Amino acid sequence: MRRFVIGQAKNLIDQSRRRQHHHLKNLSFLSLLPPFSAPSDSSSRHLSSSSSEMSASDSSSSLPVTLDSINPKVIKCEYAVRGEIVNIAQRLQEDLKTNKDAYPFDEIIYCNIGNPQSLGQQPITFFREVLALCSHTALLDESATHGLFSSDSIERAWKILDQIPGKATGAYSHSQGIKGLRDAIAAGIEARDGFPADPNDIFMTDGASPGVHMMMQLLITSEKDGILCPIPQYPLYSASIALHGGTLVPYYLDEASGWGLEISELKKQLEDARSKGITVRALAVINPGNPTGQVLAEDNQRDIVNFCKQEGLVLLADEVYQENVYVPDKKFHSFKKVARSMGYGEKDLALVSFQSVSKGYYGECGKRGGYMEVTGFTSDVREQIYKMASVNLCSNISGQILASLIMSPPKPGDDSYESYTAEKDGILSSLARRAKTLEEALNKLEGVTCNRAEGAMYLFPCLHLPQKAIAAAEAEKTAPDNFYCKRLLKATGIVVVPGSGFRQVPGTWHFRCTILPQEDKIPAIVDRLTAFHESFMDEFRD
Amino acid sequence: MRRFVIGQAKNLIDQSRRRQHHHLKNLSFLSLLPPFSAPSDSSSRHLSSSSSEMSASDSSSSLPVTLDSINPKVIKCEYAVRGEIVNIAQRLQEDLKTNKDAYPFDEIIYCNIGNPQSLGQQPITFFREVLALCSHTALLDESATHGLFSSDSIERAWKILDQIPGKATGAYSHSQGIKGLRDAIAAGIEARDGFPADPNDIFMTDGASPGVHMMMQLLITSEKDGILCPIPQYPLYSASIALHGGTLVPYYLDEASGWGLEISELKKQLEDARSKGITVRALAVINPGNPTGQVLAEDNQRDIVNFCKQEGLVLLADEVYQENVYVPDKKFHSFKKVARSMGYGEKDLALVSFQSVSKGYYGECGKRGGYMEVTGFTSDVREQIYKMASVNLCSNISGQILASLIMSPPKPGDDSYESYTAEKDGILSSLARRAKTLEEALNKLEGVTCNRAEGAMYLFPCLHLPQKAIAAAEAEKTAPDNFYCKRLLKATGIVVVPGSGFRQVPGTWHFRCTILPQEDKIPAIVDRLTAFHESFMDEFRD
Repeated sequence: MRRFVIGQAKNLIDQSRRRQHHHLKNLSFLSLLPPFSAPSDSSSRHLSSSSSEMSASDSSSSLPVTLDSINPKVIKCEYAVRGEIVNIAQRLQEDLKTNKDAYPFDEIIYCNIGNPQSLGQQPITFFREVLALCSHTALLDESATHGLFSSDSIERAWKILDQIPGKATGAYSHSQGIKGLRDAIAAGIEARDGFPADPNDIFMTDGASPGVHMMMQLLITSEKDGILCPIPQYPLYSASIALHGGTLVPYYLDEASGWGLEISELKKQLEDARSKGITVRALAVINPGNPTGQVLAEDNQRDIVNFCKQEGLVLLADEVYQENVYVPDKKFHSFKKVARSMGYGEKDLALVSFQSVSKGYYGECGKRGGYMEVTGFTSDVREQIYKMASVNLCSNISGQILASLIMSPPKPGDDSYESYTAEKDGILSSLARRAKTLEEALNKLEGVTCNRAEGAMYLFPCLHLPQKAIAAAEAEKTAPDNFYCKRLLKATGIVVVPGSGFRQVPGTWHFRCTILPQEDKIPAIVDRLTAFHESFMDEFRD
Repeated sequence: MRRFVIGQAKNLIDQSRRRQHHHLKNLSFLSLLPPFSAPSDSSSRHLSSSSSEMSASDSSSSLPVTLDSINPKVIKCEYAVRGEIVNIAQRLQEDLKTNKDAYPFDEIIYCNIGNPQSLGQQPITFFREVLALCSHTALLDESATHGLFSSDSIERAWKILDQIPGKATGAYSHSQGIKGLRDAIAAGIEARDGFPADPNDIFMTDGASPGVHMMMQLLITSEKDGILCPIPQYPLYSASIALHGGTLVPYYLDEASGWGLEISELKKQLEDARSKGITVRALAVINPGNPTGQVLAEDNQRDIVNFCKQEGLVLLADEVYQENVYVPDKKFHSFKKVARSMGYGEKDLALVSFQSVSKGYYGECGKRGGYMEVTGFTSDVREQIYKMASVNLCSNISGQILASLIMSPPKPGDDSYESYTAEKDGILSSLARRAKTLEEALNKLEGVTCNRAEGAMYLFPCLHLPQKAIAAAEAEKTAPDNFYCKRLLKATGIVVVPGSGFRQVPGTWHFRCTILPQEDKIPAIVDRLTAFHESFMDEFRD
C-alpha cells in the first residue's frame, strides 16, 4: 500500500510537470509564431504537418505517441541556436522569394550560428584535394590527376590510404578512428603542446557534439549528478545535460572583466550545489569562449586545473576554437599542456579535450569531423568509453581524414605550403578585422556594451534596454532579448540569438552575433543594425 | 525519516548492483583475456593503458572517475559485434605480424561484422565520382575533369551543388538534411513503393544507428517503458535500450519455420510485459533479418501492421538490408508500402523506417550516411524529434549526398548506367552464391543446422553442442557458443560472433557469420571451418 501511494504521488507529480511543460510550450508558440511553428526550410508543406492533414491539436487521433507520453528529458532540452528566431527567419526567407517588396531587406543574413562556409567562406584547397582523392581513389592511377591536384595532396592521399586496411575508405574503421590518422593527430598535439600525446587516447567523433554527449552519458546517472558550466554557455551543454537527466551547475563569467573566470565563483557554486545534495562530476570550460569570445590566460588555466584536481572533477575542455585567436596579447594554451607543464600526469587529472573540424580557419562544419583526447581515466573506465564509441561503430571516414589534416597541415617545402598559408592567413586576418569592426559598431550604440572577441567567432553584446521595451516584451509574453532580436530580424533580416538561449546573469540581456558574414557585407550590416537600434530606442526610450 | 530509510535502501541496492557488475566483469576478463583486455588495433601501448603506467586495478589513484561512479546504464550496455572475440582477433592480428609461425593460419578473416569493403568489396564507381566532385568542386571548372569522370557524375554533382545554398558542402545543413537531397530520397521511396513520400518526413542521419538512438531516447522515460525486439536481435537494439534505461521486451523468432515472426508470440510477450507493469511503446522489426537473414512475407507484414495499430505501438522498421534479397521466391516490401496498401495513412500508424548507405550492394559503411522516414506522429511530437536532431546540428554532408544517390542511382540512358548495373549485379549475385555455398557447408557439419540467408548479409547456424563441450565451456566460465567461437578463431583465424551476443532461445547455441569474404576465399574458409569443426567434435563428442 505504501509503495502504491508513493507511486501514485510520483505519477501525479510527473503528470503535472508534463502538463506544465505542455502549457508553457503552447503559450510560447502562441506568442512567438502565430500562424505556424514547425521548423522547415521548405514552405508550408511541412508546416501544415507533412503528407498529412493532421494538426498538433488533433487530440482525437489514434496515434500512440503524444507530448504527454514522450521522454520529459527531451521536452526539457532546448537548443537556441536553431530555435524560434531561426524558424521565423526560415519562414521569412521562403516568403522573400515571392514577396520581395513586402520587406525592407532583400536577404536573410544568418549570424546565429558558427557556420562559415554557409556565408561564403571558401574551403582550404589542400584539404579538399585530399578528400576528393580519398573519395575516388581511381583518380590516383590517372596521369591527368597530376595536372589537377597539388603534388603533396597526391602524396598525402597515398599516405592516408596506406594507413587504411585495404585502402577501404568505405569500411567501418576501429571505433576510435583509423589508427594512422590518430597517429597524425597525436603528433599534431605534441607539436602544439610540447608534451607527448598518445594516439590511443584519441576518440574520433562526428564533430565535437557526439563526444560531449558521450561524456555526459558516462558521467550522469541522475539529476543528482551535476556538471559545472559557464554562464553564458553554448547550449550544447545545457541540451546534453538535460537529455541525460543531469543538473547544470552554473558558474557565471564576469562580464565586467572581459568574461573572466573566477575561481572564487567556481568554489561558491560548487559548495552551493553540494549543499543541495548534488555530486558535481565535471567542470566544462570553453576556451576560447562561446558565446563570449574570451581567451583564458595561462595562470587562470593553472588555477582551474588545480581546482579540478583538488575537487575531484573531470575537466571537460571545449577547445574547438583553438585556431581562432585574434588579439596579439592572447594565445591559446591547451589545458593538457598547462596541466603537464605543472607536472600533472595521467594519474593526477581526468581531462577531456574536444576538437572539431567545424571551427578554426577551416570551418568544415558539414564534414562532421572531430576528436576528443581522453586522459586521466582508469583503463576500466576507458573500456566503457570505448564500448560507447563502438555502439555507433565509428565516425565518418571523411571527417576522420579531415581531422587528421587540420592537425597536420602542409609544412614549409610542401607544394601546397604557400597557397595553404595564404588561404589560412587570409581567413584569420579577415575574421580579426570583422570582429573589431563589429565590436566597435556595437559599442557605439546607445545602451549597448560589448567585450572584444579575443577569439572564437562571436560577439555577445549586453543590451541595457529601456523599461518601456521590457514592458512591451512582457506584454508579448516574451523575454526582452527575444523581443529585441525578433524586432531586429523583422526590420533588417539579420538573424542573431537572444542571450536567453545561452543563459545570462538574471536581469541582464544580450544577444550572440557571429563575426562570419563576408567582409564586404559588414558595412551594410553595421548600417542596418545601427539604424534599427536607433529607431528601436526612439520607440522605447524611457 | 521514512524518506531517509527508503533512500538508504536504494543506495545499498545500487551499490550492490554495481559491485556485482564489477565482480562479473573482472571474472569475465580473467577467464577470457588473461594478459590484457583493452580494445586496440595497435599493440601493447594501449593495452598497458595508454601514455600511463596506470592499471585498471590501480585503486590508489586519485582520479575522480571509477567504475562504481559512472552511469550504470553504460556498464549494462553490451555490443557483441565489437566485443571480446574481436579484441582477441585484433591481438592475434598484431601478433601475426611478428610471429607468423606460431599460428596455423596466416591472416585473420573478419566475419563478425557487415563491413563489405573491409573484405575487398569495391565501391560503386558512380557514387564515388559524385562524392569526389562534391568534395573538391574546383574540379568541375577543369576541362580535364571530363576525361576522368563519367558525364552523368558531373551532371549529378552540379545538380546536387545547385541544391545546396552557396554550393557549400562544408556548411552545416538543415538539421533534417539538405532539402534537395531529401527530395531525391522521397522520390526514390515513391518509386520503390508506389505511394507518396514527403521530403519533410525524412531525417538524415550518420548511418542508421543515430536514428535508432533518437527514437529510443524519445520513447523511453524509464525501465517501465518497453520495446518489443526480435530474438535473436541486432545488438544495436539491446545496447540502445540499455543506454536509455528502458526494457527490452523479447519476442522469439521461430527457427524451425525459417525464423518466422508469429503474431501469437508478439501478443503473448506483449501481455506478459504489460502484466509486469511495463508500457510497451514500440515494436522493432528487422527486415530482412539481422542476424537471421529471413525476408518477411507480405501477409505477415500486414498482420504486424494491424498488431501495431491495434496495440498502439510505434513500428520501428529496420529496413537497411532492403537491397539484399537473394532468393527468387522472396521480395522486399517496405512497411510503409504495406501499411498504405492496406489503406492506413498518417493518422493510423506511427511508423519509422530506417535506411543506411552501409548495407545494400553499396556497402559504404565508412561514409556514415542514412535516413529515417518518420510518419504518423503529431506535429508537436515531430517538433521534438526535430529538436533532438538539431542538437547535433546535422549529419555529415557526404553521407547525405550518398544517401540521396543510393535512392536515385543512374537510370537507363545515363552514361554510367551500364557500368553501374554491372557493378551492382555483380556484387549481389556473388553475395547470393556466397550465402548459398556457406549455408550448404554449414548444414553438412555434424550437429549444425542453418536456415538459408534469404536476405541481409549473415548466416546464423545453430550448434547442437555435445554435453562434454558444454561442460568444458562451463569449466572455463564462459558460454558454450563463446567457447566454440574462441576455439574457431584460434584454430582458423575466422572471426564470428557468438549467438549470446544477439540473444537466443535459452539453451540453444549459435554464431553469426557474415557472407562477405570475397568469393575466391570462400572455399578455403569452408575447408578450414569444416576441419576445425570435425576436430572440435572429435574432442568433445559424447
